[in-house]
Amino acid sequence: MTVELRNPQTLGAVASSDPVLPERWCNLLTRLPEPLPPVLDPPGAETSPIALMRRIRLRELLTQDESTKPWIDIPGEILERYEEMGRPTPLTRARRLETYLGTSARIFLKREDLLPTGSFKLNSAIAQCYFARQEGAEKLVSETGAGQWGQALAYACRLYDLGSVVFWASVSEQQKPGRSALTRMLGATVYPSPSAETDVGRQLLADGQAPLGSLGSAIGEAICYARDHAEFRYVSGSNLPHVLLHQTVIGLETRRQLEILGARPDVLIACVGGGSNLGGFMGPFLEDKAARGDELRLVAAEAASAPRLTRGELRYDHSDPVGITPLTRSYTLGRDYPLPPTHVGGLRQHNGSAVIGVLRKHGLLEARAFEEREIFEVGSLIVRLEGLLPAPESCHALAAAIAIARENPREKRNIVVCISGNGWLDLEGYREHLPS
Amino acid sequence: MTVELRNPQTLGAVASSDPVLPERWCNLLTRLPEPLPPVLDPPGAETSPIALMRRIRLRELLTQDESTKPWIDIPGEILERYEEMGRPTPLTRARRLETYLGTSARIFLKREDLLPTGSFKLNSAIAQCYFARQEGAEKLVSETGAGQWGQALAYACRLYDLGSVVFWASVSEQQKPGRSALTRMLGATVYPSPSAETDVGRQLLADGQAPLGSLGSAIGEAICYARDHAEFRYVSGSNLPHVLLHQTVIGLETRRQLEILGARPDVLIACVGGGSNLGGFMGPFLEDKAARGDELRLVAAEAASAPRLTRGELRYDHSDPVGITPLTRSYTLGRDYPLPPTHVGGLRQHNGSAVIGVLRKHGLLEARAFEEREIFEVGSLIVRLEGLLPAPESCHALAAAIAIARENPREKRNIVVCISGNGWLDLEGYREHLPS
Repeated sequence: MTVELRNPQTLGAVASSDPVLPERWCNLLTRLPEPLPPVLDPPGAETSPIALMRRIRLRELLTQDESTKPWIDIPGEILERYEEMGRPTPLTRARRLETYLGTSARIFLKREDLLPTGSFKLNSAIAQCYFARQEGAEKLVSETGAGQWGQALAYACRLYDLGSVVFWASVSEQQKPGRSALTRMLGATVYPSPSAETDVGRQLLADGQAPLGSLGSAIGEAICYARDHAEFRYVSGSNLPHVLLHQTVIGLETRRQLEILGARPDVLIACVGGGSNLGGFMGPFLEDKAARGDELRLVAAEAASAPRLTRGELRYDHSDPVGITPLTRSYTLGRDYPLPPTHVGGLRQHNGSAVIGVLRKHGLLEARAFEEREIFEVGSLIVRLEGLLPAPESCHALAAAIAIARENPREKRNIVVCISGNGWLDLEGYREHLPS
Repeated sequence: MTVELRNPQTLGAVASSDPVLPERWCNLLTRLPEPLPPVLDPPGAETSPIALMRRIRLRELLTQDESTKPWIDIPGEILERYEEMGRPTPLTRARRLETYLGTSARIFLKREDLLPTGSFKLNSAIAQCYFARQEGAEKLVSETGAGQWGQALAYACRLYDLGSVVFWASVSEQQKPGRSALTRMLGATVYPSPSAETDVGRQLLADGQAPLGSLGSAIGEAICYARDHAEFRYVSGSNLPHVLLHQTVIGLETRRQLEILGARPDVLIACVGGGSNLGGFMGPFLEDKAARGDELRLVAAEAASAPRLTRGELRYDHSDPVGITPLTRSYTLGRDYPLPPTHVGGLRQHNGSAVIGVLRKHGLLEARAFEEREIFEVGSLIVRLEGLLPAPESCHALAAAIAIARENPREKRNIVVCISGNGWLDLEGYREHLPS
């Protein structure tokens, strides 16, 4: 879809010589306080997960995962897609929330929920499908937790005429019949995970392990599927450096928008699952953080039901329950951790990105965990105040913003929250948790 | 919510001295080929529905319904709200649909689906709530069919701190649990109609008449509720001249956007329920129609299950099944017409706007009717091609566009379709009709 016309007047226009949309992604790997710990094969393993990943992944993305360039040019065609889909996304002010809280802080919302599939995931899905097409791939397989990535991937695959197969954490797929239907309508083949489609899924089913599935089980199945279907490339929507790289478009826009407004950020907040929303939002501010120290707070909001950063430990672990993935060093609860069937599928995993692990280890990243009931109350408050219905994952970031604003109500600060997605297809969760 | 910043560069910006957002609404009443037939009281009625409506409606809206001014200034505060909510909405090009159809026509989409509540209804809801607040009203009651109006009204009432009660055609409310939940979360009290809350509802329940409800039953109940609750004003989201007036913001923007693109419209298409989407979209083109005759086609797309324009007759009828409303002269199927429980709640009524009646009577408006299965197939095609999931109502307009494009595939024309709303909260209908 091409946007033919939109009047800049209406939305607080910036001079046209001053574009907000960046032309380069920001490589977090060159901005970390220590080199990213490498992925490892398990000691004594018969087969090498690393070799498998090299075989089934797209070459360009493997290159990006190890790039030492501080900036990576965004291909022109991807920039066009970004523009067509509504980038840069607005930075809005939550004035009614500020009034409600009685805070002297200004609360800004970076509105990734306004993208066509309702979440930030499209930023990387478009890029990955572009590279897939460049490399001659015809079909992609991936995993999804809450479904935001699966839906975005299905949409991007349509734009690039690619086939798609999505393994979807079973409990989340069942909780979100609308999102699942839409993803299928977009042309994806959807398998609830664990499924009988793969060795990994069959093993999980036979063991009675993880019958609800998780992002981890879906990751394991998607990789296994690509291993056994040569015509498929495996892609993923979070965790990995190249995904965080693509998502830095969020932070770069935000940083520029704040500059233009003359608003220096004091607190940046994002929810954290695999870490691509947080990494993409905060990555372009890492140099500011290094310069400003405690004056700039970076806050990760996670689910109390999957408390990796607040209760996990920093060590090597697989990202799937069976062990088909390489070992990644990040904060983990252990791959057998019993994740309850919450409506927070996007944060429902036992480990996360190695990049987030490094940030947390060095004290650059605060972390706060929120209970499921609490975050649906926050979402319900936000929709009443601001008209915006946040995805359950995004509610965590908003919950953190509210908590922080309340701690020092008189302090004049700029609190900037990334709204990772909208909750229109997550209403089942809201309905379950709120009095009717 | 205030949009603080959005970069005009990204969306095909127009020079800033050339705003698309109009500052005046266009009054259709002064552009009709004959005066609007007045509403009437039923002969020999004990009480006067007209007097009742005068008592329970907002004064400014009554004035607008009879205004002879060709243009009516949009109050500055409403303009601000329009801007905040993303007006002007984009005019996009459906290039992949054009390619799929192999048509030489250009197909433009006016994207009302991108407004915060997902439909065009907010254009009038904002205006009505503004006038309600001006007149010191504190609570509003209304009806809704598919729920787009109820949701928009609930949202606008939040912005103006008004209470809201919504009577919602029972079958539609049940079909759309997500939309219903969201409307309640926005603060509205929702009653499925027919309900036990009002005399009208109790009468319908006792008679076993219209157990599924319809827009008509909900209209009757909302009016009855306002009659019996003095603290409430009654407002409505379609049919009436003032609603069409507010919605002309759609057509005025579209006309300006097409002018800037240098694209003269050949066919304008909208779905038609009560008529505010069609009237608002096409009203500003009525003078062009008068000048250009058959060179400019105005096409109404209706539901085959409620075929007012294609099978109804032009005569006076009540807009509710009990007869609490004044008599309106429009195309009607009769107020006892058994409307089947389709997933097309926004078009599911037995009559419509008197304005549409005049346009149709004078041959200015073509009409086409589409079956439910057909329109869900169209929606499914559109989401695969364009990423946009249209509301079932909007699918009718798209179905008409596709049919017209196919009739003369080689003809170079500009076909402009109004997308009245998105279908994210209508996925139950899609799921019921499409193979999984």
